[in-house]
Amino acid sequence: MMNNFNTFHLIKTYPDSKARAGELVTPHGVVPTPVFLPVASQGTVRTLTPEEVKGMGIAMVLANTYHLYLRPGIPVIEEMGGLHEFMSWDRAILTDSGGYQIFSLAQLRRVSDEGVIFRSHIDGSQHLITPELAIQFQEALGADIIMVLDECPAYDDSFEKVWEAVSRTHQWAERCQRAQKRNDQALYAIVQGGGFSELRHQSAEYLTSLDFPGYAIGGLSLGEPKRVTLDMIDETVALLPEDKPRYLMGVGSPEDIVEGVARGVDIFDSALPTRVARNGALFTRLGRVNIRNAAYSQMEQSIDPDCDCYTCHTFSAAYLHHLFNCQELLAYRLATIHNLTFINKLTQKVRGAILDGTFSSFKDSFLATYQPTDEQVRLDQKQKWLKRRNLSE
Amino acid sequence: MMNNFNTFHLIKTYPDSKARAGELVTPHGVVPTPVFLPVASQGTVRTLTPEEVKGMGIAMVLANTYHLYLRPGIPVIEEMGGLHEFMSWDRAILTDSGGYQIFSLAQLRRVSDEGVIFRSHIDGSQHLITPELAIQFQEALGADIIMVLDECPAYDDSFEKVWEAVSRTHQWAERCQRAQKRNDQALYAIVQGGGFSELRHQSAEYLTSLDFPGYAIGGLSLGEPKRVTLDMIDETVALLPEDKPRYLMGVGSPEDIVEGVARGVDIFDSALPTRVARNGALFTRLGRVNIRNAAYSQMEQSIDPDCDCYTCHTFSAAYLHHLFNCQELLAYRLATIHNLTFINKLTQKVRGAILDGTFSSFKDSFLATYQPTDEQVRLDQKQKWLKRRNLSE
Repeated sequence: MMNNFNTFHLIKTYPDSKARAGELVTPHGVVPTPVFLPVASQGTVRTLTPEEVKGMGIAMVLANTYHLYLRPGIPVIEEMGGLHEFMSWDRAILTDSGGYQIFSLAQLRRVSDEGVIFRSHIDGSQHLITPELAIQFQEALGADIIMVLDECPAYDDSFEKVWEAVSRTHQWAERCQRAQKRNDQALYAIVQGGGFSELRHQSAEYLTSLDFPGYAIGGLSLGEPKRVTLDMIDETVALLPEDKPRYLMGVGSPEDIVEGVARGVDIFDSALPTRVARNGALFTRLGRVNIRNAAYSQMEQSIDPDCDCYTCHTFSAAYLHHLFNCQELLAYRLATIHNLTFINKLTQKVRGAILDGTFSSFKDSFLATYQPTDEQVRLDQKQKWLKRRNLSE
Repeated sequence: MMNNFNTFHLIKTYPDSKARAGELVTPHGVVPTPVFLPVASQGTVRTLTPEEVKGMGIAMVLANTYHLYLRPGIPVIEEMGGLHEFMSWDRAILTDSGGYQIFSLAQLRRVSDEGVIFRSHIDGSQHLITPELAIQFQEALGADIIMVLDECPAYDDSFEKVWEAVSRTHQWAERCQRAQKRNDQALYAIVQGGGFSELRHQSAEYLTSLDFPGYAIGGLSLGEPKRVTLDMIDETVALLPEDKPRYLMGVGSPEDIVEGVARGVDIFDSALPTRVARNGALFTRLGRVNIRNAAYSQMEQSIDPDCDCYTCHTFSAAYLHHLFNCQELLAYRLATIHNLTFINKLTQKVRGAILDGTFSSFKDSFLATYQPTDEQVRLDQKQKWLKRRNLSE
């Protein structure tokens, strides 16, 4: 479908690299890329007002069709004039189709070529989703960028199972494309294929032949080793067209963003920065620190002297420690503000470094000083999180 | 003690009434009265930043010595330069001495004339508080108005028990007065006496003979019938000096504020507006409504068309209902903003009506249209709340 409302401009590709700077022009403003989308699954970036999110310079957020379909229901939001109006956010929105949530959170009843019958994780009620309905719902919500319905396999599924999921994702992508009626929304396809290069190739090739205005890389960051994540990004990006935006779904740690950009990714989203913030884990340029640690109980400086976010600008580490210690709700909010500011500034710095020709050294220096969370700890946390099925984001 | 930093100016007493308008001049700004103090027990008005509280035009908040003594500890706050600095609030603060919390939240070990030995409600650790320590702690915190240590009896205690508490409160008030070293804080006495007129008289007379710069009415709104509350206010106020501020502790429903002002009260505080907000109960000029009610699930207007607070100005009732339904943290914050704005505007309107000579009709019209929460429901809720010992505020 012709789409003049949503375009992507590639501004610069960094020499001898895949890193690039560009911009998404949407009906709700221009979004410079690389960009990180904070997660607003239920129509709110948890703890924050739209004004606060804007105040950080964030240009686009991600909302979730699955969650909004269950609560408050698509017709309620449609009646209110769409999702932008409902959540009082006048910048860009990307809605995920709900594929990932249906395959990870909901109780699955039956998947067929037609669609998926699933039970709500909230009340067990039974629902049907098809590619056509996924588009219908997302057109009613009215996001700027919408996603095809995909089947998202677990990272340890067999080759055969992943192959089936990929084939179905391809059929569904075509049906989504045909079902699209609005011409002011950009519909992105989702490349699947798990950890299998062959399937990633197949998927990227097939979907690019359908000429979507953007391509997502799905089914990663689900507990697989980081090496596999990075390899799959490399192999997929190599087959995606230069002039279309690339969106790595569900990835959002500081080091992963830098690595992802270096591999040619333009768009990221993840609940990680906001989720770990509520647990007291705050980003600094040296790595994550936990404000609950007794070491902060009397620290008069802010948690991160390099940061000019509202939290660091206004409060001592000791005060933030006290709020966490007392489980005061303001704690979660101040930590969220800090982490989102950190991630957003990081993508801005990355973009600046691409544009001014210093990305290589920026990347090396960032990765040399930033201490990522230990991989085993990270995987354990992720597994625990997936098991608890944290339905919140 | 001479105190030129904290003064009270009575501006106008409403004709044929006890209602009055005045102002408290504090080292952290002028506070117009009647005034309602939002509760910031642990150094934060729950869910809000200091900027948001200021944005509502709130000039003074209440913090709690008991809570801050236990967490983060008085020395930590002293080290940071005092409570204003610690919580980043540059307007006026009143600290309660902790008397009420020790007698209601903590496990009491022993009360003697010397002081109280109690166990922390958090970790069971044992602590001693004396009148002298209560002053020492409050001088270290550095609030603008501080309170004597009092013994707060339960509303159904025997005459003898209340009499003992009153006597001890008197001795302690004198000791607090003698212990005071800083001359930039106003130390208020607390009249006790339960529901016994005779004891209220005794207490008011004794304490006024000591010439404090302000007088609080304590030990009310603890589950007694509203008629008793109002009678005790009447009888106490009648014995307090005209030129000193009167502070009714722990009272803060819209109807109680209007009734209290009519009876000559200048200062109110209560956790009620913020506590019920987090439960979805929102003030409107017709009474409380509960946003969780399904009736709001599709309402495009704001919850209160008369209100220009950030919440009502920005979001539909349907959105707020959705946030509560999903237990999104933003819900509690938006509801808190609304209720505090409502209460603060109410005190402003009351003050305006006193100054422009329309208080009588304002009061009658307000009480005629505002439907208070049913008294039995209110008492049950209060009892439940006291039992649960909601330690949070």
